[in-house]
Amino acid sequence: MAIELKDLTKRSDNYSQWFNDLVVKADLAEQSAVRGCMVIKPYGYAIWEKMQQQLDRMFKETGAQNAYFPLLIPKSFFSREAEHVKGFAKECAVVTHYRLRASEDGNSVEVDPSARLEEELIIRPTSETIIWNTYKNWIKSWRDLPLMCNQWCNVMRWEMRTRPFLRTSEFLWQEGHTAHATREEAEAEAKKMLEVYAKFAEEWMAVPVVCGVKSETERFAGALDTYTIEAMMQDGKALQSGTSHFLGQNFAKSFDVTFLNKENKAEYVWATSWGVSTRLIGALIMTHSDDNGLVLPPKLAPIQVVIIPIGKAGEQMQAIADKLQPVVEQLRKAGITVKYDDVDNKRPGFKFADYELKGVPVRIVMGGRDLESNTVEIMRRDTLEKETIGFEGLAEHVISVLDDMQANIFKKALDYRNARIYECNDYEEFKQRVKEGGFFLCHWDGTEETETRIKEDTQATIRCIPYGFEQTEGVDMVSGKPAKHRVIIARSY
Amino acid sequence: MAIELKDLTKRSDNYSQWFNDLVVKADLAEQSAVRGCMVIKPYGYAIWEKMQQQLDRMFKETGAQNAYFPLLIPKSFFSREAEHVKGFAKECAVVTHYRLRASEDGNSVEVDPSARLEEELIIRPTSETIIWNTYKNWIKSWRDLPLMCNQWCNVMRWEMRTRPFLRTSEFLWQEGHTAHATREEAEAEAKKMLEVYAKFAEEWMAVPVVCGVKSETERFAGALDTYTIEAMMQDGKALQSGTSHFLGQNFAKSFDVTFLNKENKAEYVWATSWGVSTRLIGALIMTHSDDNGLVLPPKLAPIQVVIIPIGKAGEQMQAIADKLQPVVEQLRKAGITVKYDDVDNKRPGFKFADYELKGVPVRIVMGGRDLESNTVEIMRRDTLEKETIGFEGLAEHVISVLDDMQANIFKKALDYRNARIYECNDYEEFKQRVKEGGFFLCHWDGTEETETRIKEDTQATIRCIPYGFEQTEGVDMVSGKPAKHRVIIARSY
Repeated sequence: MAIELKDLTKRSDNYSQWFNDLVVKADLAEQSAVRGCMVIKPYGYAIWEKMQQQLDRMFKETGAQNAYFPLLIPKSFFSREAEHVKGFAKECAVVTHYRLRASEDGNSVEVDPSARLEEELIIRPTSETIIWNTYKNWIKSWRDLPLMCNQWCNVMRWEMRTRPFLRTSEFLWQEGHTAHATREEAEAEAKKMLEVYAKFAEEWMAVPVVCGVKSETERFAGALDTYTIEAMMQDGKALQSGTSHFLGQNFAKSFDVTFLNKENKAEYVWATSWGVSTRLIGALIMTHSDDNGLVLPPKLAPIQVVIIPIGKAGEQMQAIADKLQPVVEQLRKAGITVKYDDVDNKRPGFKFADYELKGVPVRIVMGGRDLESNTVEIMRRDTLEKETIGFEGLAEHVISVLDDMQANIFKKALDYRNARIYECNDYEEFKQRVKEGGFFLCHWDGTEETETRIKEDTQATIRCIPYGFEQTEGVDMVSGKPAKHRVIIARSY
Repeated sequence: MAIELKDLTKRSDNYSQWFNDLVVKADLAEQSAVRGCMVIKPYGYAIWEKMQQQLDRMFKETGAQNAYFPLLIPKSFFSREAEHVKGFAKECAVVTHYRLRASEDGNSVEVDPSARLEEELIIRPTSETIIWNTYKNWIKSWRDLPLMCNQWCNVMRWEMRTRPFLRTSEFLWQEGHTAHATREEAEAEAKKMLEVYAKFAEEWMAVPVVCGVKSETERFAGALDTYTIEAMMQDGKALQSGTSHFLGQNFAKSFDVTFLNKENKAEYVWATSWGVSTRLIGALIMTHSDDNGLVLPPKLAPIQVVIIPIGKAGEQMQAIADKLQPVVEQLRKAGITVKYDDVDNKRPGFKFADYELKGVPVRIVMGGRDLESNTVEIMRRDTLEKETIGFEGLAEHVISVLDDMQANIFKKALDYRNARIYECNDYEEFKQRVKEGGFFLCHWDGTEETETRIKEDTQATIRCIPYGFEQTEGVDMVSGKPAKHRVIIARSY
């Protein structure tokens, strides 16, 4: 394993390979026997569970409730909303039969041709259609609104090029679907959920994000507006990390969902949807981790503190354990997840490398000499700084290190990103510099033509019209036409 | 709604219709647009979430970790384990294509025939095959064992006759899959997980269960032994509520999963799998509920206490609220979920009926007269008993009522069931009596022949060879042959 760790590609050598290596070596996920579908291993899944718990709490605080809608969607539902079908039809897994039978030689199974479905069913790539078909029966009057449901589930998009966590054919996500009486309320909901995502990204994942609104070409299929949080990875590329859509009345009209307003008149319902996925784990990895392995934000680390006693089996190990036991208990009482690793079939050096690889935020080591001096050695994963300290106030100190690390890795990522946001007014300069990564704040004339040209010339796309930047009118660097504001352009995952 | 409630079929009129009505009227679930697939509505899903939380805790205490494996399984995997394919091939949803395209007239979508998969993929009906194909890479040495993973997910079995929660084409469940070095360890694991399920059923769901082992015909496809918990519904029918399988080395052999033992010799791994599903919600409903609606065990009720103030808007409502606020806070501090329902667009009578229908364990009402006398009225859902009491120690009293209700509905269900377990030695008598429901303890000669005859004659099946009953040898009531023990025979869902 120590040898395997050495094999972790360096970020400077090949960032993409480093990512792929790390996902496997840190036991987060691996490729499965099914093209484009990954197995999320226990350590990776534990991160997802921690994310889910916090997000779920935040969703419920906004009044959303969880529910569950079917995995399979009748094919005809996709034709109902014209834009939606264009966006998703190309990449659908289609169920056509409902039975297998033994092959003639009896050695294998084959599809039973007599068990063909009358109408094919699609594995959900997203659930707007089936949910709005259901909401039709749930919404009658203004009293039934707002209706705010979320579901945690798997979805399937038949991607041709896949990468673990970033783009997989099947992925886990949550999708919120809300119904409102007015346009204003729905727009406010879409924006509020974007704020929830931004707060989660920054305060829990320690990943700084730019909030903004997508250009028309980059919108969700069927939305009037798509709001996004965009994070910058260590290679300067953007990663779209969560989106929230204002869907107008499009789905309500397609599925005929009306409500009686207070004046007893029928109106179409206003909609939003919003989602984040296991892609967030990709964002975590590519924001914080280093050539030694994962660096995890303490708030989401499955193991927050690992304690490794080093001594001779028997009396010495027992003496060390006796010293450390109260610290373990104090930390656990404070809600910290502690692993006390005294298994004797792995050497300390192996353990050190392995926990570094896995991004455990704080490591506490106590050996024979520490026993004499009544101290322990603490190492924090972000800076790899070590300190030797006594037992007085040890638990409190560890907690403050965790807090400090959470704040520190956020600041580090923020500084890194802010140093790579550039205003740019010259297309030739842009074409050169965009290869190196970074977010480019450029004036845009608002046309699809310009957008397409930038993409064709540089593979970069308009990530969003950002919030939180002072905007001035100007001149589009590509077309020379007047532009109302700057947008963020970047290469992206 | 009050009118709708009246329409709830009485159990004595039509038990099956009562169940279907209740699922819809209590807002638990409804039929979806996809045959045999249900929508689990927020109230129903909230019960499932409470179940998940507790089960997940119990699984983790045994050392199991969560993970996630792909939804789709290559068709060929099913042929690898001979028994397994027989059990599941008949009812599989098969993905054959990965793209749709616009139809010629442009008004609808159709399957793109050029996007046919080389090998069809099956939506998992259960995941032994794909998981053991993965475990092959995870298990090398005895040090990697035991390996204990669980996943919470959706599965699909193409059932012809479906009923909400009891039998649906898609359902939610958890499936644990463990790998062990020895037969003894695997058998012990399978039995331990059955105990976990029994404990959960009895202590959390308040549903008494008989633990036992299945006959060969009723075993999971590919198992050497299937352990089961069997609950009795109010109509005397059995509901298989959870199963745990000792899989021997069958899957290890089919997927070539070996480990090096301490003597450095390769051995096949021993396996178990175990699962419970949203079917548990069906068990809950049919064990406790009555003609007024749901009766939920307090430990799993999404709302444990509802407080309904009744008064004139303004000063009086405020005075009532002031009195009740400290009680709400005390209860919430004690971890009780409280809903304070002062919405004024529904009448008290409607609210009473609705919360009864939804099975909220405790209702507290405070009106104008109570304000004068400084009292509240408490009603408990199981007995519908009301009492008027003062504020002194109110929160503690409510908590004790919840505890008492949890114990009381278990005892009621246990007494009901125990009164319907019959020893029976005469097949003619059995054939008559089994129609009325109940668990029949009968000697069985161990042959499939007898089993089949009983099923053909009476639709009843051998539920299990039960634990916890004193067993004596005897004579099979059907064949007259010698029998080693009694089994439980019953009609079932």
